[in-house]
Amino acid sequence: MAHVQTLLVRFEDVDYARVVFFPRLLEYCHRVFEDFFPAQLGVSYAEMVAQRKIGFPVVSSKADFRFPFRFGDECRIAMEVLRMGEASVTNRFRLFRGGALAAEIEIVVACVDVDAFRARPIPDDVRRGLEAHRV
Amino acid sequence: MAHVQTLLVRFEDVDYARVVFFPRLLEYCHRVFEDFFPAQLGVSYAEMVAQRKIGFPVVSSKADFRFPFRFGDECRIAMEVLRMGEASVTNRFRLFRGGALAAEIEIVVACVDVDAFRARPIPDDVRRGLEAHRV
Amino acid sequence: MAHVQTLLVRFEDVDYARVVFFPRLLEYCHRVFEDFFPAQLGVSYAEMVAQRKIGFPVVSSKADFRFPFRFGDECRIAMEVLRMGEASVTNRFRLFRGGALAAEIEIVVACVDVDAFRARPIPDDVRRGLEAHRV
Amino acid sequence: MAHVQTLLVRFEDVDYARVVFFPRLLEYCHRVFEDFFPAQLGVSYAEMVAQRKIGFPVVSSKADFRFPFRFGDECRIAMEVLRMGEASVTNRFRLFRGGALAAEIEIVVACVDVDAFRARPIPDDVRRGLEAHRV
Repeated sequence: MAHVQTLLVRFEDVDYARVVFFPRLLEYCHRVFEDFFPAQLGVSYAEMVAQRKIGFPVVSSKADFRFPFRFGDECRIAMEVLRMGEASVTNRFRLFRGGALAAEIEIVVACVDVDAFRARPIPDDVRRGLEAHRV
Repeated sequence: MAHVQTLLVRFEDVDYARVVFFPRLLEYCHRVFEDFFPAQLGVSYAEMVAQRKIGFPVVSSKADFRFPFRFGDECRIAMEVLRMGEASVTNRFRLFRGGALAAEIEIVVACVDVDAFRARPIPDDVRRGLEAHRV
Repeated sequence: MAHVQTLLVRFEDVDYARVVFFPRLLEYCHRVFEDFFPAQLGVSYAEMVAQRKIGFPVVSSKADFRFPFRFGDECRIAMEVLRMGEASVTNRFRLFRGGALAAEIEIVVACVDVDAFRARPIPDDVRRGLEAHRV
Repeated sequence: MAHVQTLLVRFEDVDYARVVFFPRLLEYCHRVFEDFFPAQLGVSYAEMVAQRKIGFPVVSSKADFRFPFRFGDECRIAMEVLRMGEASVTNRFRLFRGGALAAEIEIVVACVDVDAFRARPIPDDVRRGLEAHRV
């Protein structure tokens, strides 16, 4: 089952064309990923990264944008896990305005030790939480 | 022949893990695309968008990140045109640190009338400039 | 009575020194100002700006930073109105971590017609809402 | 004598009102401060901060904005030192469009050890460089 969150498109999120500047939509996805931790695992992203020293840098991404978001829009984001390996996860983010799919973004992250920046197995509590949101 | 530009990784471009937050790398690519216009076409991006009302919203993107950029790194970006249609262009950005390829990003943009946000043919001067940077 | 809102310091809000990059704190204040409209006036900031064409560009600001915010901190912001003229407002934002005052920021905004970018009187509903949050 | 640098207002620097979102102007000032180091001291800001572990967090700021910058504008920034103490510096940034003063921003920074985040004397080479740009 997807983890769902709604973000408001801010005054400063749009560019001269008055639509959301596309890197901001990737920032939105990261925010949803950050909030997944307290919402679904009961641990803040800061605790995971700064205390447990476990980070999730992006290895690859792909995105399809069907129509743009504009200032004041509600951007509803549904995050699901597509694939999970020993030390990597592929998350899919679908971005909706009203009932319509505006964008679909897949992001592969590695699981690393933050200090060494070296791959490490996904810890069990995170794995269980991600498993529960698998497609 | 590629359009090449070097950007410095700033103090504020990195995140808590002290590597460049990945949406910033997409911002870097957009900056190179903006600077392509004055450097290769002799017209500023602002003139293109604000006066001629021709914009290039992103339709899709894909990115592979091999190793991260860090504060103080020089990020050398080579932009080339992979494909060009009537009203769309696929640009490839290769990001290097020293001689090593750190990331490869493909971005498909549509050509639109900025006010109507509707597809329109790529104008001839832009087409010629892009053609000259085709792989 | 102050309008109070709590923001979470994100992974990407900090810089290489691992404290919040100071312009982000001014962005936080603007976000609280944006959210003041739906929370206290019952009208979204987007409706105010994009439909009613009433904007609030910054005329001046001053800020004192006592101690920095870090990744994972809760930043509690209390917004109050210090002064109000015919076409300008001085808002004070006090930023707390726990019970401690971390920063104090005053921002003077003008009230303008967004299209003409010319000063205009603060509309009555906004004036009443601001008045209710005067120190 | 002022350290002078010109920045281009980017497509994504403006907000819905199509003027530069004011925290971006403070980011511009920080960028000029970062570039002051290689331009005037012959040492990169990254070397100063990441290797020599000397940082300059903002203690206070004040800003007056006379007229806004827009997409495509050249923003010429003149940085000068107003005051210098044992462990703090007050820099003034004047932002010009054409010959006209658009904004004036004063930023007080402390000199700190980056790891301990504790005040330390400004090192001699930095002090000499700043002294040479004193009003």
